[in-house]
Amino acid sequence: MNMRDIIIAKRDKQSLTDEEIRFFVKGVTDGSIPDYQTSALLMAIVLNGMDDREMTTLTLEMAQSGSVLELPYIDGVAVDKHSTGGVGDKITPILLPLIASFGVEVVKLSGRGLGFTGGTVDKFESIEGFNVEVNTKDFQNYVTKTGMVISGQTPDLAPADKILYSLRDVTGTVDSIPLIASSIMSKKIAGGAKGIVLDVTCGSGAFMKDYAMAKELAEAMIKIGKLADRKTVAVITNMDQPLGRVCGNILEMQEVLNTVTGKGEEDVIEVVVELAYHLITIAKKDAGMSPEVLRSEIRARLSDGTCYEKYKELIKSQGGKLNDSGSPVYVDTPFDCMHVNSPDSGYVQSIRTDLIGQASVLLGAGRLAKTDKIDYGAGIGFFVKVGDKVERGDSLCALYTGANSNLPEERLFDAMDLILEAYEIGPEKPEKTPAILGVIT
Amino acid sequence: MNMRDIIIAKRDKQSLTDEEIRFFVKGVTDGSIPDYQTSALLMAIVLNGMDDREMTTLTLEMAQSGSVLELPYIDGVAVDKHSTGGVGDKITPILLPLIASFGVEVVKLSGRGLGFTGGTVDKFESIEGFNVEVNTKDFQNYVTKTGMVISGQTPDLAPADKILYSLRDVTGTVDSIPLIASSIMSKKIAGGAKGIVLDVTCGSGAFMKDYAMAKELAEAMIKIGKLADRKTVAVITNMDQPLGRVCGNILEMQEVLNTVTGKGEEDVIEVVVELAYHLITIAKKDAGMSPEVLRSEIRARLSDGTCYEKYKELIKSQGGKLNDSGSPVYVDTPFDCMHVNSPDSGYVQSIRTDLIGQASVLLGAGRLAKTDKIDYGAGIGFFVKVGDKVERGDSLCALYTGANSNLPEERLFDAMDLILEAYEIGPEKPEKTPAILGVIT
Repeated sequence: MNMRDIIIAKRDKQSLTDEEIRFFVKGVTDGSIPDYQTSALLMAIVLNGMDDREMTTLTLEMAQSGSVLELPYIDGVAVDKHSTGGVGDKITPILLPLIASFGVEVVKLSGRGLGFTGGTVDKFESIEGFNVEVNTKDFQNYVTKTGMVISGQTPDLAPADKILYSLRDVTGTVDSIPLIASSIMSKKIAGGAKGIVLDVTCGSGAFMKDYAMAKELAEAMIKIGKLADRKTVAVITNMDQPLGRVCGNILEMQEVLNTVTGKGEEDVIEVVVELAYHLITIAKKDAGMSPEVLRSEIRARLSDGTCYEKYKELIKSQGGKLNDSGSPVYVDTPFDCMHVNSPDSGYVQSIRTDLIGQASVLLGAGRLAKTDKIDYGAGIGFFVKVGDKVERGDSLCALYTGANSNLPEERLFDAMDLILEAYEIGPEKPEKTPAILGVIT
Repeated sequence: MNMRDIIIAKRDKQSLTDEEIRFFVKGVTDGSIPDYQTSALLMAIVLNGMDDREMTTLTLEMAQSGSVLELPYIDGVAVDKHSTGGVGDKITPILLPLIASFGVEVVKLSGRGLGFTGGTVDKFESIEGFNVEVNTKDFQNYVTKTGMVISGQTPDLAPADKILYSLRDVTGTVDSIPLIASSIMSKKIAGGAKGIVLDVTCGSGAFMKDYAMAKELAEAMIKIGKLADRKTVAVITNMDQPLGRVCGNILEMQEVLNTVTGKGEEDVIEVVVELAYHLITIAKKDAGMSPEVLRSEIRARLSDGTCYEKYKELIKSQGGKLNDSGSPVYVDTPFDCMHVNSPDSGYVQSIRTDLIGQASVLLGAGRLAKTDKIDYGAGIGFFVKVGDKVERGDSLCALYTGANSNLPEERLFDAMDLILEAYEIGPEKPEKTPAILGVIT
């Protein structure tokens, strides 16, 4: 078996055999296959596709290319959740304590943000003292104590995927459903998940721009889940406007606190409840409740203090500081330094969420390169969202930086320009789009 | 402009702009574009194609990536001939003196053989003393003396093509009409040709297996020629059986001698006459003869001694040794060491020419790696060709090695097996296929 023949097979629209895929992933992992052959195969896959069996084999081989986490101490079915990324996505910090209150134990491995997609680890690190450098061998201690652990120090999971992803990034081979689906699923499987709930974001602020694409990706991952014997559910969520009221690290953690204390935004709550419902069900912690009862019980726990208590437990267990009234202490204070005013009167028709994300990065809330430092206090607050009425001169957004930021003023104006470009104001009140666009099982 | 965007454009079936192609070829030549990006683009080109303008720009950019030969001393239009390769292809050594006798001056840059395609340089080197290491600055002296020069020491022509070709070879991206066409044309243009005659071989012993493919390649090169302002003609020739009576270096040079002294095989003569006709016409050396008169004049010069005299001039001018009777002296003597006999009676239906080529390499007539040494005396003689009648036990082929070869006996038997596999014998006399399948202008 040699790589040239494997490339030619895919170039000629053949299905690769399991042995060929195994040879490829092994060679990528041990470096025996040169990058130029790998990228030729990746382009052939982008253009000629992969069938379900090929995707699944690729997923499992990548998952097994490094350590695979065993989670024998998890009570019930080990579940995990993954989001394909968006702006203002503060779901995980709410979801973890919420499902933990139902007895769903979770080891959450999370990354730092790159581009305008925020990283869950960065968000937790905006709490004073919160330690995300938890080692694999300590996971059980945390899970036993609170049912939850969040770690940014991920072991060597799916190294083949890491190598392939960095090559895809520079060779125009990112946009491929089989490659995206197998990349996501391989990391979840290597992380020990036996049940997977996917938040497939869809819209201008997401990787998948329209519903058809999001559905295609969701279906591919469901198929892999089925063939790989991992119960998988995909929730397609709306990213045609930012989720909730703010984006930025501390700002989002403040919104998280609002949400777990019963003062959340409806779109955030809807997404959290739907994802929690599937996670609890798959983990078999629904305690025999009917779907309706379970859903209303989940929603209730956001406002009756149950989720809030678990949230504080999580923060305390990983060293995060709470003040006397029980609220987290943040590493900085967001400073409201400029409002962007509406140039027209009318209704907000749409918000180009990718531009909002870019503005947020300009303010310092995100990284462009992996080594960039984040301004935890930076971000954007949204006074109005799609469907809201504005008068000319009303504030659309507030721009924040950290209290001690020395952001060059022109960056602030560049961010303002992006926001003015992002907001479309028109005379008619647009139809409201739901936060959840579909559930695929 | 960056390479990733260029890859994405071709991935998404867009035409690349001239600037993008220029950026790509420049980056390949100076090494600033990494191989893994190049191979991703090559695969996208293989699968999504290139239009005529893209092919032409790629050709010209590759031609200009290194030295471009100027041939101001050539009388008339500088012409060149290229064959896409075959088994038993001894056309060039006959063609050069033949057209030189009409005043067509040619600087012939030729390579060594690799695989079962023989190299013209190897064939000339099978003549004692023949020097193919002629420097660019000496070309004019030779051309002034005899009208011909053959050089294996090619200057740095189209280095971008060399780099791309070696990458294509290992990444399954050889099979692409635009890439093959631009590769061939770029080398001819860099070699200074203003008129190009292409021998596009077609059949089991050629790269293009059927007429449709050969025609497509021919048409692509004609289009490039048109847009690049190089008068181009393509002759599609039959490579469904070896050309002439022998393959192998000295054996072929012996057949060359037969052909230039009026004792040639009809298929070889037909191809030589057709190519010579177009070369003479494009070089404007037809002296006002009608096509019919010119063709019969060309054919006449193969038997009236004119071509033979020019052939001896060529050999002498480059140091080749002739014996007292005026025949070349070869570096070795082919030794007829085994005959392969027909297992059946009937007519030769077809000859798998690729297998014949492989057998010839096994005998030592060709190289598998660039550094392999050739046995100049090795090769195969064909007693029967397609349409000939054989009785069981008749000789199909004679296998030759050099007189002092110590070829392991099992190699000889492996070659025999290949030849038995190559010859198909059947009861009906098959229709004769012509040597020339088409001419595309």
